Amino acid sequence: KCNLTGWWENDLHSRMHVFKVDNEGNFSGEYHTAVSSTTTPIEPSPLVGTQHLDKDDQCTFGFTVNWKKFSDSTAVFVGQCFTEDSGNEVLQTSWLLREKVDSQHSDWKATR
Amino acid sequence: KCNLTGWWENDLHSRMHVFKVDNEGNFSGEYHTAVSSTTTPIEPSPLVGTQHLDKDDQCTFGFTVNWKKFSDSTAVFVGQCFTEDSGNEVLQTSWLLREKVDSQHSDWKATR
Amino acid sequence: KCNLTGWWENDLHSRMHVFKVDNEGNFSGEYHTAVSSTTTPIEPSPLVGTQHLDKDDQCTFGFTVNWKKFSDSTAVFVGQCFTEDSGNEVLQTSWLLREKVDSQHSDWKATR
Amino acid sequence: KCNLTGWWENDLHSRMHVFKVDNEGNFSGEYHTAVSSTTTPIEPSPLVGTQHLDKDDQCTFGFTVNWKKFSDSTAVFVGQCFTEDSGNEVLQTSWLLREKVDSQHSDWKATR
Repeated sequence: KCNLTGWWENDLHSRMHVFKVDNEGNFSGEYHTAVSSTTTPIEPSPLVGTQHLDKDDQCTFGFTVNWKKFSDSTAVFVGQCFTEDSGNEVLQTSWLLREKVDSQHSDWKATR
Repeated sequence: KCNLTGWWENDLHSRMHVFKVDNEGNFSGEYHTAVSSTTTPIEPSPLVGTQHLDKDDQCTFGFTVNWKKFSDSTAVFVGQCFTEDSGNEVLQTSWLLREKVDSQHSDWKATR
Repeated sequence: KCNLTGWWENDLHSRMHVFKVDNEGNFSGEYHTAVSSTTTPIEPSPLVGTQHLDKDDQCTFGFTVNWKKFSDSTAVFVGQCFTEDSGNEVLQTSWLLREKVDSQHSDWKATR
Repeated sequence: KCNLTGWWENDLHSRMHVFKVDNEGNFSGEYHTAVSSTTTPIEPSPLVGTQHLDKDDQCTFGFTVNWKKFSDSTAVFVGQCFTEDSGNEVLQTSWLLREKVDSQHSDWKATR
């Protein structure tokens, strides 16, 4: 349990499809973001990641989304799965978005 | 150029080995961390990630390290490659480390 | 409007009392946290900060909480005020918590 | 010692002047940033903050910079003072920059 395989949706209505978690905990999938910092039309974007396979249902995980179809940015998400009393599985995540900058001088502002 | 394949070392003397970047920009590798927030002995840890394949040498990238061999935590890194005037390639990265917590009530402190 | 003076409560049931915002936008107050990363009993902690005084009701602000009464850590919060359609004022904030570490070698893990 | 009073300069050549730390650890000052995410000319900006007054020389501290003279953003910094073997005092800090956004819907991208 707490296998990430399947569809997930967040508060901003972005949706994520994790195709299949292998025996090592690795997975690939597709991220359908509902928000963007660019003006280019959004497209579903490939993701790769890995999760722990602990016997409890509270594994930590992380994945990277490559926005290459419409942006030169990359995002990473890291989080943990929880099962609520109701039986619902919830993912709590934090993320960083790296935007491409011209030079190292602008590196300070590249990540949000 | 700006292909992540190979060995990289950071300021803290952690080292990363990226095995091979495929045509989609995906890669796997091994992270040899020099620092840890646990007391368990450190071991090389598997990573998976993805990079852009822009024609310039300043691609953004991201990857996830699964510390499963000695910890139930997960880390994500996101950054960009730069080539310095000297010809040296430098990776500028930011990271988040997710530690496993008991319940959603402790979620606020799980990420550093 | 969007003056921070008064009491605010967050999702974790921490409460903040901003005493009075002066003409420069500066303020002091007291933070009653509901959560802690230490085992010492929590006490109300002094805060100092500053906000913009834009004519709209969507000012950004920031403040620092000095946990000196029970911890050697310091926290900073930064955010923006919003007025919802219902007329409710809501603060959206992000924060960093700095824990004291022994040496610069441990600096990498000091902030969450 | 490890009193923040005085001038400090960071790697990006931004400079900070802390006027005077009072008996509670509170201080005000002026931040002369070398970098900006706006196109408006930069001006020295007021800051307010607070530091611990521990007897060792490794206090944590935090402060808020109000960019009101040229921007509607706010930044917070949190960190710790260290004394190197050479006797140099060094501040290690992390920061968050809050940019004003139109609505809560854009809140996700407001902080870097």
